[in-house]
Amino acid sequence: MQYAIKLYYHGTEFHGWQVQPNAHSIQAEIEHALSLLCKEKIDVVGNGRTDTGVHAKNYVAHFYTQIHISNAKHFLFQLNAILPKSIMIEKICMVPDNFHARFSATSRTYKYFVTQHKNPFLTDRALFYPYDLDIEMMNIAAQRLLTVDDFTSFAKLHSDVTSNICKVYESFWEKKNDQLIFTITANRFLRNMVRSVVGTMLWIGRKKLTLSDLETIIDAKNRSQAGTSVASHGLFFWNVSYPDIEI
Amino acid sequence: MQYAIKLYYHGTEFHGWQVQPNAHSIQAEIEHALSLLCKEKIDVVGNGRTDTGVHAKNYVAHFYTQIHISNAKHFLFQLNAILPKSIMIEKICMVPDNFHARFSATSRTYKYFVTQHKNPFLTDRALFYPYDLDIEMMNIAAQRLLTVDDFTSFAKLHSDVTSNICKVYESFWEKKNDQLIFTITANRFLRNMVRSVVGTMLWIGRKKLTLSDLETIIDAKNRSQAGTSVASHGLFFWNVSYPDIEI
Repeated sequence: MQYAIKLYYHGTEFHGWQVQPNAHSIQAEIEHALSLLCKEKIDVVGNGRTDTGVHAKNYVAHFYTQIHISNAKHFLFQLNAILPKSIMIEKICMVPDNFHARFSATSRTYKYFVTQHKNPFLTDRALFYPYDLDIEMMNIAAQRLLTVDDFTSFAKLHSDVTSNICKVYESFWEKKNDQLIFTITANRFLRNMVRSVVGTMLWIGRKKLTLSDLETIIDAKNRSQAGTSVASHGLFFWNVSYPDIEI
Repeated sequence: MQYAIKLYYHGTEFHGWQVQPNAHSIQAEIEHALSLLCKEKIDVVGNGRTDTGVHAKNYVAHFYTQIHISNAKHFLFQLNAILPKSIMIEKICMVPDNFHARFSATSRTYKYFVTQHKNPFLTDRALFYPYDLDIEMMNIAAQRLLTVDDFTSFAKLHSDVTSNICKVYESFWEKKNDQLIFTITANRFLRNMVRSVVGTMLWIGRKKLTLSDLETIIDAKNRSQAGTSVASHGLFFWNVSYPDIEI
């Protein structure tokens, strides 16, 4: 039987989603907990990697098990009791065998949180950026991303992907509860891409870069041209969409 | 010149407000930062103690310095740059010499946050309490506190205060954003009092205690009768009022 799970995690204590030798990962915690409950070795496939310190809401993963989970509520209760406080599985449901958390996804959304004022309650979940920002200008830059095809300038160097082409469906800044929030939805994301576009837009907001510099950066197809990548603790994986199924 | 400051702190890393030998306290951090800026030894008086792990919003303290702080905005900027991320001073203003952060206060408000669902983003700021709760019953108990005079049953034993009489002005539970929040305003609070009344009310919510048990507890004037005191990380100092001055 193949199952999908929807989960939330506070990423501060983890070295990202993916299992790595000698590092604490969300995937490893979940595989450990599921293997205990299913009494067999379980491999979990996530909808994508997240880096060290990145948080997630509505993250989807799938796994295969020989057991039939008849009481989802009870299974979730046990699963959440085993998992650390920083990981919560909200839902589990059976999915068709051809469902794949990563390859079946048609779009993903990330949000990046910025606070311009020192706030002791946001230190682990928003970038403290105490500068004047031209949000209108940042939104013009955000809109420009909708028509960019090749995001090489915003990708981590030496990344192992074969294509840097992404289609951005949504990209905007908004002010909410004294925070600045950037939302971006795309069919796929390159490694470090959101943090790199946010860094570039913040420089535009501070007038350290112009919109014409942004064009030069995009055209250069070279990561070293873009603004500094911002810290991971302001980044939230927010959502993932599957065309035929609601997780 | 005497000054008042209004501050926010995330209490997790501190051993409470008050300076103690070999412990990390909010008061010590602020005295250190103010002494650096004022270039003299500064003693800070807070509006009351908070225990290890308790958070605070709108906490008020006062101090005396020989210097005249002419540019409050600049002074705050420097102060917040010296202080750790977990403490933020929002305001500084001159106050009359007879102002006392603790003794001039006429009422204080605390809030206690409870979540009945596991939530990775609330682990440091709400009690995880995965039980069914009768909130109506808890609100009847909360209302009863308005007519209690002697809070001995909810005070820490061997406390050094001479009176356990408190006047509660406001006491209620409400549901907000999937959290249960208890608000209590009183002229004064005894050590451990909020966490002890919350523990008792949660037991009433779980039907482990009845409203008639509550009467017995109040009448006993004995701490050992009340429900278990709840964890400090759900508790927020919320506000303090001064009759003649707005800080």
